[in-house]
Amino acid sequence: MKQKKQKNKPLWMGRFMDTPDKIMQKINASINFDKRLYSQDIEASVAHIRMLMRQNIINKQECEDIVKGLITIKKEIEEDSFEFSDSKEDIHMHVESRLIELVGQKAKKLHTARSRNDQVATDIRLWVRDAIRDVDILLRDLQEVLINHAEHHYADFMPGFTHMQSAQPITLGHHLLAYVEMFGRDRGRFEDNKERLNECPLGAAALAGTSFNINRDITSSQLRFNRPMRNSIDAVSDRDFILETLSCCSISSIHLSRIAEEIVLWSTSNFNFINISDKFATGSSIMPQKKNPDAAELIRGKTGRIIGNLVSLSSTMKGLPLAYSKDMQEDKEPLFDTVDTLKLCLLAMTEMIKSISFNTRTMYKMSSLGYSTATDMADWLVRELKIPFRDAHKISGKIVALAEKRKCFLHNLTIKDLQKIEPKINESIFSVLSVKASVNSKNSYGGTSTKNVYNEIIYAKNKWL
Amino acid sequence: MKQKKQKNKPLWMGRFMDTPDKIMQKINASINFDKRLYSQDIEASVAHIRMLMRQNIINKQECEDIVKGLITIKKEIEEDSFEFSDSKEDIHMHVESRLIELVGQKAKKLHTARSRNDQVATDIRLWVRDAIRDVDILLRDLQEVLINHAEHHYADFMPGFTHMQSAQPITLGHHLLAYVEMFGRDRGRFEDNKERLNECPLGAAALAGTSFNINRDITSSQLRFNRPMRNSIDAVSDRDFILETLSCCSISSIHLSRIAEEIVLWSTSNFNFINISDKFATGSSIMPQKKNPDAAELIRGKTGRIIGNLVSLSSTMKGLPLAYSKDMQEDKEPLFDTVDTLKLCLLAMTEMIKSISFNTRTMYKMSSLGYSTATDMADWLVRELKIPFRDAHKISGKIVALAEKRKCFLHNLTIKDLQKIEPKINESIFSVLSVKASVNSKNSYGGTSTKNVYNEIIYAKNKWL
Amino acid sequence: MKQKKQKNKPLWMGRFMDTPDKIMQKINASINFDKRLYSQDIEASVAHIRMLMRQNIINKQECEDIVKGLITIKKEIEEDSFEFSDSKEDIHMHVESRLIELVGQKAKKLHTARSRNDQVATDIRLWVRDAIRDVDILLRDLQEVLINHAEHHYADFMPGFTHMQSAQPITLGHHLLAYVEMFGRDRGRFEDNKERLNECPLGAAALAGTSFNINRDITSSQLRFNRPMRNSIDAVSDRDFILETLSCCSISSIHLSRIAEEIVLWSTSNFNFINISDKFATGSSIMPQKKNPDAAELIRGKTGRIIGNLVSLSSTMKGLPLAYSKDMQEDKEPLFDTVDTLKLCLLAMTEMIKSISFNTRTMYKMSSLGYSTATDMADWLVRELKIPFRDAHKISGKIVALAEKRKCFLHNLTIKDLQKIEPKINESIFSVLSVKASVNSKNSYGGTSTKNVYNEIIYAKNKWL
Amino acid sequence: MKQKKQKNKPLWMGRFMDTPDKIMQKINASINFDKRLYSQDIEASVAHIRMLMRQNIINKQECEDIVKGLITIKKEIEEDSFEFSDSKEDIHMHVESRLIELVGQKAKKLHTARSRNDQVATDIRLWVRDAIRDVDILLRDLQEVLINHAEHHYADFMPGFTHMQSAQPITLGHHLLAYVEMFGRDRGRFEDNKERLNECPLGAAALAGTSFNINRDITSSQLRFNRPMRNSIDAVSDRDFILETLSCCSISSIHLSRIAEEIVLWSTSNFNFINISDKFATGSSIMPQKKNPDAAELIRGKTGRIIGNLVSLSSTMKGLPLAYSKDMQEDKEPLFDTVDTLKLCLLAMTEMIKSISFNTRTMYKMSSLGYSTATDMADWLVRELKIPFRDAHKISGKIVALAEKRKCFLHNLTIKDLQKIEPKINESIFSVLSVKASVNSKNSYGGTSTKNVYNEIIYAKNKWL
Repeated sequence: MKQKKQKNKPLWMGRFMDTPDKIMQKINASINFDKRLYSQDIEASVAHIRMLMRQNIINKQECEDIVKGLITIKKEIEEDSFEFSDSKEDIHMHVESRLIELVGQKAKKLHTARSRNDQVATDIRLWVRDAIRDVDILLRDLQEVLINHAEHHYADFMPGFTHMQSAQPITLGHHLLAYVEMFGRDRGRFEDNKERLNECPLGAAALAGTSFNINRDITSSQLRFNRPMRNSIDAVSDRDFILETLSCCSISSIHLSRIAEEIVLWSTSNFNFINISDKFATGSSIMPQKKNPDAAELIRGKTGRIIGNLVSLSSTMKGLPLAYSKDMQEDKEPLFDTVDTLKLCLLAMTEMIKSISFNTRTMYKMSSLGYSTATDMADWLVRELKIPFRDAHKISGKIVALAEKRKCFLHNLTIKDLQKIEPKINESIFSVLSVKASVNSKNSYGGTSTKNVYNEIIYAKNKWL
Repeated sequence: MKQKKQKNKPLWMGRFMDTPDKIMQKINASINFDKRLYSQDIEASVAHIRMLMRQNIINKQECEDIVKGLITIKKEIEEDSFEFSDSKEDIHMHVESRLIELVGQKAKKLHTARSRNDQVATDIRLWVRDAIRDVDILLRDLQEVLINHAEHHYADFMPGFTHMQSAQPITLGHHLLAYVEMFGRDRGRFEDNKERLNECPLGAAALAGTSFNINRDITSSQLRFNRPMRNSIDAVSDRDFILETLSCCSISSIHLSRIAEEIVLWSTSNFNFINISDKFATGSSIMPQKKNPDAAELIRGKTGRIIGNLVSLSSTMKGLPLAYSKDMQEDKEPLFDTVDTLKLCLLAMTEMIKSISFNTRTMYKMSSLGYSTATDMADWLVRELKIPFRDAHKISGKIVALAEKRKCFLHNLTIKDLQKIEPKINESIFSVLSVKASVNSKNSYGGTSTKNVYNEIIYAKNKWL
Repeated sequence: MKQKKQKNKPLWMGRFMDTPDKIMQKINASINFDKRLYSQDIEASVAHIRMLMRQNIINKQECEDIVKGLITIKKEIEEDSFEFSDSKEDIHMHVESRLIELVGQKAKKLHTARSRNDQVATDIRLWVRDAIRDVDILLRDLQEVLINHAEHHYADFMPGFTHMQSAQPITLGHHLLAYVEMFGRDRGRFEDNKERLNECPLGAAALAGTSFNINRDITSSQLRFNRPMRNSIDAVSDRDFILETLSCCSISSIHLSRIAEEIVLWSTSNFNFINISDKFATGSSIMPQKKNPDAAELIRGKTGRIIGNLVSLSSTMKGLPLAYSKDMQEDKEPLFDTVDTLKLCLLAMTEMIKSISFNTRTMYKMSSLGYSTATDMADWLVRELKIPFRDAHKISGKIVALAEKRKCFLHNLTIKDLQKIEPKINESIFSVLSVKASVNSKNSYGGTSTKNVYNEIIYAKNKWL
Repeated sequence: MKQKKQKNKPLWMGRFMDTPDKIMQKINASINFDKRLYSQDIEASVAHIRMLMRQNIINKQECEDIVKGLITIKKEIEEDSFEFSDSKEDIHMHVESRLIELVGQKAKKLHTARSRNDQVATDIRLWVRDAIRDVDILLRDLQEVLINHAEHHYADFMPGFTHMQSAQPITLGHHLLAYVEMFGRDRGRFEDNKERLNECPLGAAALAGTSFNINRDITSSQLRFNRPMRNSIDAVSDRDFILETLSCCSISSIHLSRIAEEIVLWSTSNFNFINISDKFATGSSIMPQKKNPDAAELIRGKTGRIIGNLVSLSSTMKGLPLAYSKDMQEDKEPLFDTVDTLKLCLLAMTEMIKSISFNTRTMYKMSSLGYSTATDMADWLVRELKIPFRDAHKISGKIVALAEKRKCFLHNLTIKDLQKIEPKINESIFSVLSVKASVNSKNSYGGTSTKNVYNEIIYAKNKWL
């Protein structure tokens, strides 16, 4: 059989011939990604060691030396003079082994009354809390540029679309504010997520709690958590808070993908609603005339990635018995990648939208095409002639068909044309057929009339900025 | 080419030969699933028509007739005497066309100042609101059976696991309460979801609002929404509330899958921790001796389905421009299926757990195997001999190795054996080596000591039931 | 506590109060969906019983009676006179219990030397094999309408897009044939899938094989499988063939979603490249002028559902130990739903595309906008003036900028304009600036020249129809 | 409003204050991951330039200089002396700009008659082809260690499980060979994938083909593709081959997750079927006695990641119109990550399994528990007493119940006990009640008898190694 093997395994396969030790190290080591938790890890260790001191589990000198050592390590990492190595597995082991070098044997006391299980759970919660704060600010910034554009264009008209077909005229400001609402809900979702996860696992130890006389309220409040988690097994076993974060990110990225789609669409020459700054478009290596909306396409594309990350962790967590299983080490990469991706997309979207100029004349022109005020005509029939809506809808349909046949606008039809279809129609119907009249008649709460939109801008500024 | 075609298309392909009309009807019709919204649809129509009356858009008689007609329709549907047909497309058209039969032409006024776009958005929000209420009650019921078992077993010992390996002894009550915490967070998540979605889209019309003098506060409060949605385009365009519901369901089902896994595992003859009632197990068609934990397996398996539904709608919504696109009709089936599945799983899990009897003696026996108190020994070394934890960990490791070699328990080693490894060890170390001592020493907040667990049960009853 | 419960559990919760038996029945029963396997189940039972007879395990009379009974049952099901009930769990139990009614005690011999585990694995493989045959025919039909349109429009010009921006002129035929290639690969993928799965699990019994002297070659060939599966545990444990089918469906549906997107886009008034037949569009309940490309949107939307189904089963199968686990009962619904959905989408797409008329004049007109022949100009500079491509690209860029400034086409610039940018340019450059010249110069293999496209149509007819 | 902004945007937000240029660069640049394609990119460029020379589009000297330059660049990259920078966007631009430095202006001719669109499509196909070759070898290696263990244990008994419950005795060899079959199908799936994708996109240019007189057969065969792709738009637009690769990887990783689950389970002290080498297990930072099956857990966990990557690209590709969109840049990271992950998991699994020792005595002992031969008893009743299977199943059930009541094995019951339940039973029934007799009676094709398994090992060696 050996011969056969050689036949099938060419020389270049040498690269697979790692020793088992190295393969295990490679699959097992998390330092490559969990070093991102260094700052949280050190912050939590400082809180832990100070609590141990206050509880007389270690003495003051030990505490001070260890804290000093930890601060040194943090500086080393931030100055890039810290040495990382796969052989030390994870960030906790890196910090601890360096601490021994720095302060000697007493460093080993740091791991009293805790385990890597509660330690990493604490680190991630701290990291996610920070991440949510960042995302919230970026969402707010995006709302700001949307509101600014909305303010500028609160009385500019554009076609409102359904099924990507021109439906009814609306104002550009109103359209932009729809996104402000969506991102506002996203912010609320992240806020709820942050509140729910802001509990401290530290002190849960491996899974059962500890026999040391620790005080979890101290570490919890030191780390600005709302309270310690109340069940030690739960504290080290669950990652629902990450799943919730990924879900929030996923929903928010879907919102982003929808504006991205509109930016791609609106910047085609067929729509020509907007011009993107050259900074957010790129050229072609072969076609000299091209200007592509790359940033918008990338944001749209990256939504898939974020959905994928949510699936990844959901599928990993499914069916794991309590408490910690090593599968859960796979929680960090989808989390980090998702937050990084969302933050980059938010930033890029904000800057790109800031750079957009709207071709309001083109938008206006198009808003009057496609018989976009046919609904207004139907509503007029209901209101003025007391025709039931369903019948009014049919009459309007006939009028549209006539205009289509004549290849003219609705307001180009004569009163006689209209009366042939419905004799009771009178001249006043023409008052609702213009884009402006149509928009401003939509004065119901939440409607697209310029007056409404103006008020909404004031509200939005107060509420979100 | 025709001949070729016949060669390739056998006679039995006749079933594909539907007319285009029928194919379109089949792909387009949603009545098959959206009829589930009948009650919400009618409730919203009643609220809408009453508001139209109060605003003098229709008169009192018309209103009363229409309301009466709507109530009749509801009764017909509930009594199964209502006729559904693909040709009438959706629930809205079914109700409206039946209404015309019942009350005549005035029925056509019902659609004044609204569109199917805001109508369906309203219906689904109402449906989800009800669904969340149901799910909350079922989660509470599940918590109740868990708490009841925990109360019964707050002082029964079992091995706590990490990596599916016995780690430290814990109490069964503590383990069960971990799940009570998880399902508690699930309830919080659904609650937040419900608050956020509880806004009324009605009056947004197709996308732009309406020119009729409607009062959206009336319909909103009539339908027990917190407020009308403030942007008409947003109101008809977004389905983030469904995505959030699916996310909440997905996380909750992952929690369920974890208990399900433990039930499957614990009911193997190798573990033999529990007996499931025959009612929740089934036999084999071929192996007469089998008793399979089918319900637990099904719950575990159905988690995949719920994750899949979340992916489905996420992927469908991605990249859709505003406002309504027909793709969004695909929102209902994953929603309905997810809620149905989760409710069924919660019910089955609750009843199954209720039926479980715990083999506490087996659990206790196993909790003393595997040197499960080695950590306590290490902690003793730290506490009593002031040995740094890392070194204590190593000493304990050596003692475990010795016991393994001798094939005995830790407490079967003599004091001399121990002193050969660490001379300073004294007899009092034996006091921490029993399961009971180990468990009860874990007295830190959130720890597994029976005292803690007892207090937690009182807390949990107050908090969750 | 009981009181508390009542406080929290309102009267309308009565519907949850099913008995455990009923809940278990509801979560456990698969008859609701696996009855779709009736025909495969009966076919496999007939093959099995005949084999038992040929092996002298049962006698001829028993065999004939049982076969007769099975055929009766099939007829009853097809004539809708068969009674289904949740209490009999699955299709196998339904058939068997009815068989006992029909032919008496000898019916019980049917289950000799088999288990539901190998039985259901066999049924599904048969079902998938049929499903793939159907899908292949539908893919072929779709290719046919695409090829027919391509043939009609092999020399009609349209803009080719990248980044949704007009890039270079191409022929409509060429564009349509790109999809013919994609669906061709889809067919190949399904074909490979079918070959791989076409092995017979029957005789694997519960998991270990059987002690009866069966002959698996007989059942295998009777059921037109290529061979019996060679490992009984594998035969009942794996569902990779369904995952592969779902993957194939997912890829194919992504292809469908791309045409669907183009249909939606091209039918906007901004593009106006196509008209969809009224049969595949719908109107609006509120806007009388609308005509929405509903079928295309639905096909696009349903892609999410198919991706979700793949996730569902992938996640369910993950981490299941061998052999059969009840989780695997969740394999059928995503399979059935996926195949149904894909078939419906293929049918609808085929009929919709058949109904489309192309506005070739609009397409042609647009293909000449946007400086779409700028690449041809660059290529001319390379070919005729031996300028390196990168430099030629830059020169063309300058010429485009000039034309943009002048708001004219490239061919409206004078030779002097051009020579100011690059002195060596001569009059012959104008020969490559027309759409027709551009398209027909793309004569490399696989290119868009009308000659190439014409040949490809002949090839495609031969290859695919 | 500016003030408000400052209030909400604390100082530490400075890090978000990148210039738009830098943000765009960051979201747009792919060099960070697509540099992995350097070798394929250079190989394809060499093939392209040589073809241009043979077609007299460039001259021999130019060709030789460019080839030499490309080889130099390859060496620089491999020796780590090549400078990468985000500002040069992607690997193609890096190579090209360095080439200009090395060989001067003539380097610019390399991009004649091609575009980055066909270039990157070619690069990825080459990369995937290599990746599949590697994966195939790793799958084969895994099969080898499984077959080796199977050979060693072809006659060792263990309990076969369904529903994680002991069902029937089987041989360990048979169980292991089930996985050999699964991985064999995985190899077939990758092979089909490789065949299908092995077509050359080069020459498709941006999307339309080219006007240069290129010869695509030359480049195709030079790069060992089966043929050039026949439609230029398809060539640059589709990524179905990556989706297919990701699907194959996903299915294979699900197979891996199933062995991983068994390894985790079997190494618990409750099962104690196997010992994993210390090299593939790790200890606990807090519990000195622990030995955790980390590698198996990680492999199981990483399955989620691979499923997630498939979702990611599926969702990204959904609904993209032809031809290239920038979203498609998101194809590479999930591909690279998936292949890297799968390769690492395969390697680790192979080495881990190699290191496992099986506790065959424990397995044997357990295989006799749980009335695992009850089916054999039922089969005996059918075969010897001609009792229909269903009735035999019931009789066996009663006998099992009796043994359970007596807490004894089936063979500990007396013949009188048995005859009380079924009078016709005789002594010869005891011959089928031992594990060995049970296993060896499963002699049907594909069954678990040692004889079958022995033959299967010979087959498997021939077939797979």
